[in-house]
Amino acid sequence: MGEKREWEAIASQKRQEQAALLATAINNNIDVNSDDNIKINNLCGRDVIQRISSGQLTAKSVIQAYIAHLTEVMFDDAIKDAEELDRHLSRHGTTIGPLHGVPITLKDQFNVKGSDSTLGYVGRAFKPAQHDCALVKLLRSLGGVIMAKTNIPQSIMWCETENPLWGLTTNPLHPGYTPGGSTGGEAAMLSCGASLLGWGTDIGGSIRIPSHMMGLYGFKPSSARLPYRGVPVSTEGQEHVPSAVGPLARSLDMIQLAMESIIGKQPWDFDARCIPIPWRDDMYKSTFAKPLTVGVLLDDEVVRPHPPITRVLRAAVEALRAAGHHIVEWNAQLHPECIQVMDLFYTADGGEDIRTDVTNGGEPFIPHVERLINRGQPISVYAYWQLNKKKWELQQAYFDKWNSIRSPKTGQPVDVVLMPPMPHTAVPHGGCRWVGYTKVWNFVDYPALVIPGGKVEMEDVSEPWDYLPRGELDEWNQKLWADNKTDMAKLNLPVGVQLIGRKHEEEKVLAAGKILDELLRDN
Amino acid sequence: MGEKREWEAIASQKRQEQAALLATAINNNIDVNSDDNIKINNLCGRDVIQRISSGQLTAKSVIQAYIAHLTEVMFDDAIKDAEELDRHLSRHGTTIGPLHGVPITLKDQFNVKGSDSTLGYVGRAFKPAQHDCALVKLLRSLGGVIMAKTNIPQSIMWCETENPLWGLTTNPLHPGYTPGGSTGGEAAMLSCGASLLGWGTDIGGSIRIPSHMMGLYGFKPSSARLPYRGVPVSTEGQEHVPSAVGPLARSLDMIQLAMESIIGKQPWDFDARCIPIPWRDDMYKSTFAKPLTVGVLLDDEVVRPHPPITRVLRAAVEALRAAGHHIVEWNAQLHPECIQVMDLFYTADGGEDIRTDVTNGGEPFIPHVERLINRGQPISVYAYWQLNKKKWELQQAYFDKWNSIRSPKTGQPVDVVLMPPMPHTAVPHGGCRWVGYTKVWNFVDYPALVIPGGKVEMEDVSEPWDYLPRGELDEWNQKLWADNKTDMAKLNLPVGVQLIGRKHEEEKVLAAGKILDELLRDN
Repeated sequence: MGEKREWEAIASQKRQEQAALLATAINNNIDVNSDDNIKINNLCGRDVIQRISSGQLTAKSVIQAYIAHLTEVMFDDAIKDAEELDRHLSRHGTTIGPLHGVPITLKDQFNVKGSDSTLGYVGRAFKPAQHDCALVKLLRSLGGVIMAKTNIPQSIMWCETENPLWGLTTNPLHPGYTPGGSTGGEAAMLSCGASLLGWGTDIGGSIRIPSHMMGLYGFKPSSARLPYRGVPVSTEGQEHVPSAVGPLARSLDMIQLAMESIIGKQPWDFDARCIPIPWRDDMYKSTFAKPLTVGVLLDDEVVRPHPPITRVLRAAVEALRAAGHHIVEWNAQLHPECIQVMDLFYTADGGEDIRTDVTNGGEPFIPHVERLINRGQPISVYAYWQLNKKKWELQQAYFDKWNSIRSPKTGQPVDVVLMPPMPHTAVPHGGCRWVGYTKVWNFVDYPALVIPGGKVEMEDVSEPWDYLPRGELDEWNQKLWADNKTDMAKLNLPVGVQLIGRKHEEEKVLAAGKILDELLRDN
Repeated sequence: MGEKREWEAIASQKRQEQAALLATAINNNIDVNSDDNIKINNLCGRDVIQRISSGQLTAKSVIQAYIAHLTEVMFDDAIKDAEELDRHLSRHGTTIGPLHGVPITLKDQFNVKGSDSTLGYVGRAFKPAQHDCALVKLLRSLGGVIMAKTNIPQSIMWCETENPLWGLTTNPLHPGYTPGGSTGGEAAMLSCGASLLGWGTDIGGSIRIPSHMMGLYGFKPSSARLPYRGVPVSTEGQEHVPSAVGPLARSLDMIQLAMESIIGKQPWDFDARCIPIPWRDDMYKSTFAKPLTVGVLLDDEVVRPHPPITRVLRAAVEALRAAGHHIVEWNAQLHPECIQVMDLFYTADGGEDIRTDVTNGGEPFIPHVERLINRGQPISVYAYWQLNKKKWELQQAYFDKWNSIRSPKTGQPVDVVLMPPMPHTAVPHGGCRWVGYTKVWNFVDYPALVIPGGKVEMEDVSEPWDYLPRGELDEWNQKLWADNKTDMAKLNLPVGVQLIGRKHEEEKVLAAGKILDELLRDN
């Protein structure tokens, strides 16, 4: 060994290769700041695909525009793929699928043949995947172009984005702030217009939290709806609290198109885990046919949301109410129990899974991950089975709760629940501590969508917000606001809202999302 | 304590109560052997329901005829329920559902309000369930009448039926033989005409094995298709090798009706575990529209089936071929690996779950269960996660195998696999040792149907069947035939065949079963 410790040598080599690939791209006359590229990057939904299919843009020009913003490395292949798509269109006069020419990026977890899937671990660098994962196969068959993979935290198990291999991912709005995590690289890229469709995974909020912080749309479906095959994950084998694959984008249009197109390709023919539920257009369309019944949760009774979070949520509620939808009060009953049980699942192995990966790379722990794996002792398999029984009791209880809450006016059960994704916006690095607003929906495996709701404004700063904290977490969150509110307002940080539906009702959640999104965009 | 050990006192009290309930039924003028009852018992499918709805039979007379053969205890309620159904029909002129008046029995595992669910454990006696399980709620809403619960082995984890609480369930064809297990009580009752529709669970063959041994139809769907909510189970919390709920009956007609009716009631509105796949009549009907492609596995290469098993299977293959269906050779690749991994799941807790239940009752172990729980040491949760990863690799590999095997003639993939359910028929008590023919389908969670194929005949006894055993299990099975073949032929023991489909393709398996059943019944 030389003067550097070995893990640092691996990280350094990985970063040099990345720099070389970026330099090549720049030498190939890709101009990051050309007017054309900026225009293309500002398009964010089906408009791009329409312009490609009508011949106004070539797939190649779109891919070049997007590559210019990226930090990862399949540029040559992406350009070749795009040229092939352009040839196909000019030869046959038809696109190869509904995502023809869409520039796509992936969290550094999805296997792409020939690239690493590091999960943020040094020990997984330089071990390229042998095959594309099922999702990538499907995306390619739909005409999507895979451009790059993006950064995630060591082990994935954190809602910010840092690892010793690639370093810290910062928020494009302010380098001292996190873009969230674990799908933080995707969210940062998408928010800069550096990708049109991003893919993440979510086991506690990892798609929804960065979407909320970066003003994006992010969707976590029920876990068996999209294919996880060929996607390595931390604590793999633990599936009682399931991780789910889902999209992030700058328009709901793109999210809906991605979901409908992939499900239309029958992912259950690609992955034994997927359930054979086709895209139910009847469920999607019938959601628009009558007023929604929306359950509203303003506060989870553990950590009180910052003033802009509550203001934005209330505005969404008022917009729904004004449009004739029925608003019902939701409550946080069962949430503490669900969170208590799910936390025991993450560390049921006493941290052995994550410790093994970190040790293999010889790298240091990032602080959050070190705390996580030292949180509990391993339990026995028998105790693990009891925990799983408890999980099922709570799942059934939440199912009964959902069935029992009805609109006092109509007697109808709730179509979707509306609530904050987090008690705060983007925060300075290391500032996140509570993901209870998102993780409960992983525990019950319900679909959950985040859409942009608004931004922090100067009026929020002067909002009186004085109360006796409920406990340590609430006190921490109170201080977070007190210490940073002026900066947050100056930065105009995005604020998202979260919509949740019953398990497997992805179509209904996306339709309700569209209803709300149109109301909010009209304002 | 008196002179009896405590567990014996509990078992004795339980059996006295049973005897008293039976005596009451007999005093109420239910004549087991009346000509009317025998005639009713011989009807086995929709014919019964038609006669009730047309007024030829009353629901009450049907329930009385069935109760007369039973050993368990909800007779009064069943008669009351039947009277209520008869009143409903005479008042409204309509049945309350497609199972109106069907006498139903349940493995002693399904919660029925006010009755025990013992799982064959003394320690669970005299602890009546507080609520009906989801399945029972659905059955009642369809018009079914719950009559009784039936015997299972201690812990459920055996393919014969014995426990210290209720004793040994014998085969109605010969008291020295087992009816199979773990749903052995159901199969014995159904084979005597003592129930019209039985319900079991299957985690290794527990529905299919007794169906095969008793000449019945038995269906194990994919695990998430029917509701498991409110059904306690041994090693509960272990769900990576899932147990599934399914029906047993004397006609395929009744199996199909039960599946279609329950799925039509949307079990996913009753149980958070059920997936929202409606009954797909298009899949059912389209299976009849063109020749089937049938993969055939004669021998799993571990234990060679007895001559009558192979003869009956070959006859089924020839009947299919003669009717124009395409036959493709299947193989047992991946079966040994699947079985090796699944066996580790059953005992990953080192037997603690079962040991705890047996200890709570103070009862002795039955020999098979004692061997099972002493088979392995507990493993760590981390090792358990690795085992689950291995399981998913094998599931994906079997999925790929299924996609890759095609008819050389048509290029079509296989619709269903046809193979024996066991390497032997019913055997003397304690004779079972190998359930590899059924359990592999629990591991991959594919639907599997057993239908009667034929019987052991005298011609089988003289069949030359001499070979060098492949190992200990094969040698044991060879000896089983040599020692018992004349008796087996004299008893004309039933022989079933097993049809398996892709995960969640219940409709296709039932349709293929009907095609084969009609061919076999025509012969």
